[in-house]
Amino acid sequence: MINIKDRVRNKELHAKIVSAEEAAASIKDGMNIATSGFTPAGYPKAVPLALAKRMEQEKFKVNLWTGASVGKELDGALAEVKGIAKRLPYQTNNAMRTAINNGEIQYTDLHLSHVAQMSRYGFFGGKVDVAIVEACAITEEGHIIPTTSVGNAASFVQSADFVIVEVNTSQPLELEGMHDIYVPLDPPHRQPIPLVKVDDRIGTPYIPCGVDRIAYIVPCDIKDDARPLAAIDDDARAMTGHLIDFLKQEIKAGRMPKNLLPLQSGVGSVANAVVAGLANSDFEDLTVYTEVIQDGMFDLIDAGKLTFASGTSITASPDGLKRLYANISEYRKRILLRPQEIANSPEIARRIGVIAMNTAIEFDLYGHVNSSHIMGTKMMNGIGGSGDFSRNAYLTIFFSSSVAKKGDISSIVPMCSHFDHTEHDIDVFITERGVADVRGLSPKERARVIINNCAHPDYQPMLLDYFERAVKATGYAHTPHIISEALSWHTRFLETGSMKIK
Amino acid sequence: MINIKDRVRNKELHAKIVSAEEAAASIKDGMNIATSGFTPAGYPKAVPLALAKRMEQEKFKVNLWTGASVGKELDGALAEVKGIAKRLPYQTNNAMRTAINNGEIQYTDLHLSHVAQMSRYGFFGGKVDVAIVEACAITEEGHIIPTTSVGNAASFVQSADFVIVEVNTSQPLELEGMHDIYVPLDPPHRQPIPLVKVDDRIGTPYIPCGVDRIAYIVPCDIKDDARPLAAIDDDARAMTGHLIDFLKQEIKAGRMPKNLLPLQSGVGSVANAVVAGLANSDFEDLTVYTEVIQDGMFDLIDAGKLTFASGTSITASPDGLKRLYANISEYRKRILLRPQEIANSPEIARRIGVIAMNTAIEFDLYGHVNSSHIMGTKMMNGIGGSGDFSRNAYLTIFFSSSVAKKGDISSIVPMCSHFDHTEHDIDVFITERGVADVRGLSPKERARVIINNCAHPDYQPMLLDYFERAVKATGYAHTPHIISEALSWHTRFLETGSMKIK
Ligand SMILES: CC(C)(COP(=O)(O)OP(=O)(O)OC[C@H]1O[C@@H](n2cnc3c(N)ncnc32)[C@H](O)[C@@H]1OP(=O)(O)O)[C@@H](O)C(=O)NCCC(=O)NCCS
Ligand SMILES: CC(C)(COP(=O)(O)OP(=O)(O)OC[C@H]1O[C@@H](n2cnc3c(N)ncnc32)[C@H](O)[C@@H]1OP(=O)(O)O)[C@@H](O)C(=O)NCCC(=O)NCCS
Repeated sequence: MINIKDRVRNKELHAKIVSAEEAAASIKDGMNIATSGFTPAGYPKAVPLALAKRMEQEKFKVNLWTGASVGKELDGALAEVKGIAKRLPYQTNNAMRTAINNGEIQYTDLHLSHVAQMSRYGFFGGKVDVAIVEACAITEEGHIIPTTSVGNAASFVQSADFVIVEVNTSQPLELEGMHDIYVPLDPPHRQPIPLVKVDDRIGTPYIPCGVDRIAYIVPCDIKDDARPLAAIDDDARAMTGHLIDFLKQEIKAGRMPKNLLPLQSGVGSVANAVVAGLANSDFEDLTVYTEVIQDGMFDLIDAGKLTFASGTSITASPDGLKRLYANISEYRKRILLRPQEIANSPEIARRIGVIAMNTAIEFDLYGHVNSSHIMGTKMMNGIGGSGDFSRNAYLTIFFSSSVAKKGDISSIVPMCSHFDHTEHDIDVFITERGVADVRGLSPKERARVIINNCAHPDYQPMLLDYFERAVKATGYAHTPHIISEALSWHTRFLETGSMKIK
Repeated sequence: MINIKDRVRNKELHAKIVSAEEAAASIKDGMNIATSGFTPAGYPKAVPLALAKRMEQEKFKVNLWTGASVGKELDGALAEVKGIAKRLPYQTNNAMRTAINNGEIQYTDLHLSHVAQMSRYGFFGGKVDVAIVEACAITEEGHIIPTTSVGNAASFVQSADFVIVEVNTSQPLELEGMHDIYVPLDPPHRQPIPLVKVDDRIGTPYIPCGVDRIAYIVPCDIKDDARPLAAIDDDARAMTGHLIDFLKQEIKAGRMPKNLLPLQSGVGSVANAVVAGLANSDFEDLTVYTEVIQDGMFDLIDAGKLTFASGTSITASPDGLKRLYANISEYRKRILLRPQEIANSPEIARRIGVIAMNTAIEFDLYGHVNSSHIMGTKMMNGIGGSGDFSRNAYLTIFFSSSVAKKGDISSIVPMCSHFDHTEHDIDVFITERGVADVRGLSPKERARVIINNCAHPDYQPMLLDYFERAVKATGYAHTPHIISEALSWHTRFLETGSMKIK
């Protein structure tokens, strides 16, 4: 067995070190399993793999609650053995996605900042039966030092019937000290979250747990299932250029400090490209208050442009992870991981005034955004934290390429096929074609700016034609739509494979 | 002229007392006019009427920014003379609504908590040129005592080039002391809002202004344009009954304290009926943290069930207003008015854990809500504060009758025709038929509960038929829709006058 005794600092606890199989045996049909992990970072691996093996034989299901998406050893393994009844709040795994879209798994897609409190409130049908948490180490007092993410681990540990800790020796001990754990009290006892700057420490460097609540400790050395990032393409480069120009203009107009405001940047390739692109800009003393810390942030730190980054997870590529571990003594001075309830907190996002930058699947003429559904029906990943930030930011930006599927899909449509963010929430849209600044505009004004500045030339005339006919048909109504035609672009794609009229 | 000298406590300021016409003469074409007022309460009346007269002759337009909707002397009078180019953030006036839906006025429909900060950030195209504020009195220091609402008046005064104060003698001086004015600093200097209980006082009893910034003082004695409330109908009574049963069950399950949590209740007849209905329940020691204080709150106070109500406006009926003024020495002990930036603050709603109760125009199978648009195109009122509260509440409830227009419209549709609140935001739906508790449910689970518990029997089979065909057509996709049919109920209503199949 992997030796973790030096990482389990309370000798009494050594007696609780067991194999993954022994720990997994404590899990029963129908339990609510709540784990650490946020993106393929910091999630338990050995126990889920052992659980999946058991499930293959014994045929039972659990409900899985996490921070966000997790790696293949958890989401993938359990989905493949049909071991999940209910899943929340976010996922990106192929097997999981397939099961969600064929009715095998009931998925609840939630604002990531809501999950911990709703689970404590008892809103998910029962409480946390078992919390499974990946750790760097366990302290003398039985408290848990997290690894590459915090997510909802602290809250889950607090409310769980019992706790299983996976001590992962592939996670360097230098991660200790990079976490700041604060779990708010619930109403009517909640107090202001005392955080006013991105680098404020308001909690403990460990997840409070205690010796008695730990039922099993499992050794593990499986690495985070880090995913390579897509190469930065021309569209992403163009969007980054537009963003930088736009932000400079905001500074010039006196609407933004010279070093901007804390940046939040979403998941995915575009988001990472944008952050990486800032490393080549002449902005200085940037700060970050975000959910996931992607490779681009390391570029910013290395370029000497980033003062401090607060997040809930380090979502690095395999190369990024190597880079992090090789220079961890430097990076740990500038990176702090918090519970997602704090990282994504509306209270904090609004107080410190983040610049929210997320990616849309599609957006429409009037400025609504679909972040989660393909053609209105199939779940892609989920809303994630995009709503937490975009609703409460100082400035809210959404990115998207103007077309998808080699031009057969316009990402700007007459009406979205699913709605995750509404017209009330978004200030600026950026595609590779340009910037639509819709602040303070009425829907009809927004439509013209979006068509002119963001749409692909292949679709511009069609969008304008729809808009103008809708304006006439409704007699200049507030939000002009020809209801019978509003979703016809999606229907056409479903029927012909293209939104273009052939 | 109406004598207001005793209400203008600084003698130096007496020289600035002018007629409404003189004050209105300072307003120029294209200006951004920002006023007090939230619902037909506490808005300026004399200056807008004088301005409307000038506009009739001189033909010019201004942009109008307020707290929310305002009375006929402002929204009505200016809309009727075509004096408004741009309007934000909320309205309920007939002439205004018509102009918004025929292209005469560009309307920006905003979350009410966002307005003050966005105007300070300079996001609305320029700054506040003039603030016009209704006052009970002006202090020795030139600070403004508001009347029946606060809205955005404090922030507008802070950023205006110059200030016009309307001292309204129809507003009793006993209103003094019923306000708590706190305007947060903007990022990166903003601090935690130090409010933890509904009755906490965190600011000043007046709007800070100062003698020098007041350009004109105008006497006025026009009363608030209070509107009678619709009689409480059977549907509203049934919804109230369902709500009370549901809340009792939550208390029993340990998910809610015995005296509940601070109640927020939206605008309109249903919202008022629900609050009034609580007066006949056996709940005790209730608190309210809301936007508008409607007549129902007086019932609760009179019944000895309401400890304290915090809001931004007293939106009483003519009878309610009489009642308030007759017993103001009692009511003022239990009512406090705050800037809407604080009343609707996401930070506070989440911290104190409000129970958000708002009314939907329609909602759909998967739990999305349309609060603002009739048949997806025509603006009714706006989103108001419903998004501020519903996103950040402890528990979010939406009400609606199951049908509208004598049964020709089902308020539960396959897909909403406009989206103001998404599936991620709502916990519970209540119609006169019953309660759909959708917490923690997947979209497909939600659909069945909503159809079974909330839909009208006339539409239940049609909804179930759509849902089951959509499930099959998409192979049990996460959110089953037949995209070509999703809005067909609205199309049918537009074409035949009924959603029923004839
Ligand atoms: C929206 C989101 C899927 C984009 O991810 P990305 O990696 O930047 O974008 P990509 O361009 O690679 O698009 C992802 C997929 O969606 C498809 N797609 C993009 N636009 C589309 C559209 N309008 N219609 C249909 N499919 C579309 C792409 O073709 C691609 O599909 P593939 O994987 O089969 O090739 C991703 O950002 C996401 O899940 N967001 C929601 C959560 C979130 O915002 N979190 C941030 C919290 S802080
Ligand atoms: C949604 C809202 C309009 C309902 O108001 P209400 O007075 O409770 O409801 P009513 O039943 O009287 O409905 C208002 C109108 O909408 C119509 N209506 C209701 N449901 C409808 C539907 N599904 N389709 C079309 N019209 C509908 C009604 O027929 C009525 O029209 P009328 O005035 O021509 O008779 C109102 O609550 C609102 O504006 N909400 C948005 C702002 C908000 O929630 N603020 C709260 C902030 S704290």
